[in-house]
Amino acid sequence: MEYRFARRMGGLPPSFLGELFRVSSQPGIISFAGGLPSSDQIDLEGLARAARKVLNEEGRTAFQYSTTDGYLPLREYIADRYRRRLGLLAEASEIQIVNGSQQCLDLVAKILLDPGDHLGMERPGYLGAIEAFSLYEPVIHTVPLTDEGPDLERFGALVKRHPVRFFYGIPNSQNPSGRTYTESSRKAIGEILDGTETLFYEDDAFGDLFFDGRPRLPVKRFLPEQGIMSGSFSKIVAPGMRIGWISAPPPVLEAFNTAKQAADLHSNFFCQLVLHRYLTATDLDSHIRAVSRVYGEQCRLMCELLDDLMPRGMTHTRPEGGMFLFCTLPQGISSMKVFTEGVREGVAVLPGVPFYVDGGGDDTIRLNFSNAGPEAIHEGITRLARVMKRQGYSSG
Amino acid sequence: MEYRFARRMGGLPPSFLGELFRVSSQPGIISFAGGLPSSDQIDLEGLARAARKVLNEEGRTAFQYSTTDGYLPLREYIADRYRRRLGLLAEASEIQIVNGSQQCLDLVAKILLDPGDHLGMERPGYLGAIEAFSLYEPVIHTVPLTDEGPDLERFGALVKRHPVRFFYGIPNSQNPSGRTYTESSRKAIGEILDGTETLFYEDDAFGDLFFDGRPRLPVKRFLPEQGIMSGSFSKIVAPGMRIGWISAPPPVLEAFNTAKQAADLHSNFFCQLVLHRYLTATDLDSHIRAVSRVYGEQCRLMCELLDDLMPRGMTHTRPEGGMFLFCTLPQGISSMKVFTEGVREGVAVLPGVPFYVDGGGDDTIRLNFSNAGPEAIHEGITRLARVMKRQGYSSG
Repeated sequence: MEYRFARRMGGLPPSFLGELFRVSSQPGIISFAGGLPSSDQIDLEGLARAARKVLNEEGRTAFQYSTTDGYLPLREYIADRYRRRLGLLAEASEIQIVNGSQQCLDLVAKILLDPGDHLGMERPGYLGAIEAFSLYEPVIHTVPLTDEGPDLERFGALVKRHPVRFFYGIPNSQNPSGRTYTESSRKAIGEILDGTETLFYEDDAFGDLFFDGRPRLPVKRFLPEQGIMSGSFSKIVAPGMRIGWISAPPPVLEAFNTAKQAADLHSNFFCQLVLHRYLTATDLDSHIRAVSRVYGEQCRLMCELLDDLMPRGMTHTRPEGGMFLFCTLPQGISSMKVFTEGVREGVAVLPGVPFYVDGGGDDTIRLNFSNAGPEAIHEGITRLARVMKRQGYSSG
Repeated sequence: MEYRFARRMGGLPPSFLGELFRVSSQPGIISFAGGLPSSDQIDLEGLARAARKVLNEEGRTAFQYSTTDGYLPLREYIADRYRRRLGLLAEASEIQIVNGSQQCLDLVAKILLDPGDHLGMERPGYLGAIEAFSLYEPVIHTVPLTDEGPDLERFGALVKRHPVRFFYGIPNSQNPSGRTYTESSRKAIGEILDGTETLFYEDDAFGDLFFDGRPRLPVKRFLPEQGIMSGSFSKIVAPGMRIGWISAPPPVLEAFNTAKQAADLHSNFFCQLVLHRYLTATDLDSHIRAVSRVYGEQCRLMCELLDDLMPRGMTHTRPEGGMFLFCTLPQGISSMKVFTEGVREGVAVLPGVPFYVDGGGDDTIRLNFSNAGPEAIHEGITRLARVMKRQGYSSG
């Protein structure tokens, strides 16, 4: 039997990632290809205590249906943290719980995009967003991401030329590049978008993970009525519970809530309770400082090794936080070659190609530094240097 | 600021349900309006034991990212149960875990429907499905649901006249009507659809809850290559964990998996583990028999009271399972009137209107019998009789 699918299913970028991750997870391979937070940094004891507390105290309601917007005390916790850390005037009523911030990508696109609508993204841009957005058949425009943020001239020209429904960006420790927008870029984006119909969709999955512990002002501070912001507990507590949130102006949140209800009624209620008990019994800020310190050390080590061992003409970003850094390869060698030769040598990198929705990027690779300890980073980058050498590129 | 939304957001049926459920949950009101399984039937002890086991044995991987398709042992359990109970030739590879079967409604529509595509549903049809499907802007055709199943003549004419992408139905104890298709209806549907391009999407949320404990053959048995089937642990274990599944032919499941990954990466992994430990440590069949016995008694009591106390000209379905029954009111009184007068009298019913996507149904109400014990049912139906009497309808 032949099955006919919706047109949107044909617009998806080819997914070679499944195969690639399968290869990367073979025994003996040190993988920098994935995107996992460090399992060692998950506070199992704390989560287990919180779960036992919920089981003892909440009774059967913990396992019953609940409301679409999410557990109110958890939303209050998030709003309070927004006020305290970022100076956002958020109330619990402006927060909606979702299944990890990936679900925001799907539902924001669902409520805002008709086929053929224009949207903007960074170049390179987050793959999960490209996949989620593509299913709504938009015209995706990209703006090159520099060390300061999106190229402002190109950004301004884009929103002038097209009625861009929203621009999606990750201002803090972007995936895949590891870059962070400067404060003046954030302000400029606010000024450019003010008075237009373009929303700024700010994915803040990594904003807590700055190595220096200092929060950066969100773009939403400069553009409150046009700012959509998503966050996640995946990187600061645990990804397996799939709990994130979105904050948006009331009319946008109302439409989002309608779409969320149609999508899956509500997020896992038991885990919302566990997470809330965990958060209120833990010093989250100190936990996050500890995680950020480890990631910072691993990032610095990786940067040093890349500086020492990689060939001349190979460059990399210098992240201030997050989980990834991004390398540009010397001229003449493709990222797929580095991937396949790397696997032979026992190290896996992620070719940057799928992050370039409009083509290009074959001279880039993404390296994850959160999920490999210092020893693995040392050995893995040494192996990568051997790969480069064997391809005729000696260290600079 | 004016926000512009995607066209699909305008196609949603007006939602008066939020307000209605708010009213229904006021103190002192006996509500038959909702759709909750009985909290008393949630095996809190068993779930707590399973959760403690996972916390003690699984370590941090229970809280880490996992695969999109879901926890393999859980999928094996589901496939094995399909083989054992329903004679379906299912393998774990044909099962995908989702956030409750509501998510299947969203994602099946997403992979199959372009705007303007034709789909079929029962009349009355499940509201959650109407809401999920409507967002993909299909042309929805309805086929009247009789006590035997969908009107077969109308069903045959529909798939002949239009290239229907899929027909969505709930053959077992349908929501809202409580009706169950006869076996000959199921077979006839298989014969009508065989050789066409129309898929049959069989929502089996209630198939375990037959009061006589006897499973009914799914339509998929008669139409293996065109059958999509969804199931849920919400009604037989606990809804708050939001875990259900879908089973579909491999090419359909592959597209579904792509859409699931873009939607939220994967379902809550911790709860998948808890649920699996629970299922393997429990005699699920005996638990389900106990739940079904309670629901059966409550349904019979409600039917008897309706027979005794309601006015002539008011009829109701006689469910063989599930959680709902459906009443047709005497001529001349609207369901909204019964709702508002009912609330005044301290009893809430659900007007049937939103289940009629193409209009009508104002002479119908849905009553839930799973979430109210015998005493509440007795008192609630007595109050409803007073409402009818006050409107000039005396009991038959």
